Amino acid sequence: MNNTLKVGDKASLTKAFSEEEVFRFAEISTDKNPLHLDKDFGRASIFGRRIVHGMLVASLFSGLIGMELPGEGSIYLGQSLSFKAPVAIGEPVTASVEIIHVRDDKPIVTLRTMCTNSEGTVVIDGEAVVKVKK
Amino acid sequence: MNNTLKVGDKASLTKAFSEEEVFRFAEISTDKNPLHLDKDFGRASIFGRRIVHGMLVASLFSGLIGMELPGEGSIYLGQSLSFKAPVAIGEPVTASVEIIHVRDDKPIVTLRTMCTNSEGTVVIDGEAVVKVKK
Repeated sequence: MNNTLKVGDKASLTKAFSEEEVFRFAEISTDKNPLHLDKDFGRASIFGRRIVHGMLVASLFSGLIGMELPGEGSIYLGQSLSFKAPVAIGEPVTASVEIIHVRDDKPIVTLRTMCTNSEGTVVIDGEAVVKVKK
Repeated sequence: MNNTLKVGDKASLTKAFSEEEVFRFAEISTDKNPLHLDKDFGRASIFGRRIVHGMLVASLFSGLIGMELPGEGSIYLGQSLSFKAPVAIGEPVTASVEIIHVRDDKPIVTLRTMCTNSEGTVVIDGEAVVKVKK
């Protein structure tokens, strides 16, 4: 396995999802929930505005894992997600992944996956389990 | 809370993700892992071909939950995902959600979320926790 990976290794990225990206994701994923697409529906919701699909925000973890840490050749085995706060369209969020466990017996690592908004509020929390390229 | 929801209620949908959809998702999500985009890389991988992003396939659960069961007004609280088998580009998969627990004290339900391919192999398994519109 990749012996250079160790507990505490981190990667992160910041992104804001545009209205156009939310609409395109709704088309691809079939998730056309009006909470994401309809201004009036969003305004009348408990969030007071349209919000970005939670699974789209969570996809930032997938990108970090597949491209940065552990990076190319990683196989995604599992992901838990706790959606803690809404993300508004156009609001920058920072997704981060951090290795919290490296197995001795198999090339498998666990990462804490967290996404925060610009105020530091955690919007998504969870863990990923990833098989690492040998 | 919505008293019509009960354990055993189900909803499902079948979809195949096209190459164009996978490319568009890669742009939106920033996940440009070559395992999803590069034919040669996919061929040389343990899967022998490019595969659809797991988080994109999992987004089918989000659509079912937000639009069908429990449906409009649902608030996604959490989702666990176990990626069990790859999904090829153009391969039809069936996502299904089934209520497995309805809380008595709060308007919250748990659903089993499962995605299978045309051979009946489970490709994603997990659970969702959803707050239901009062």
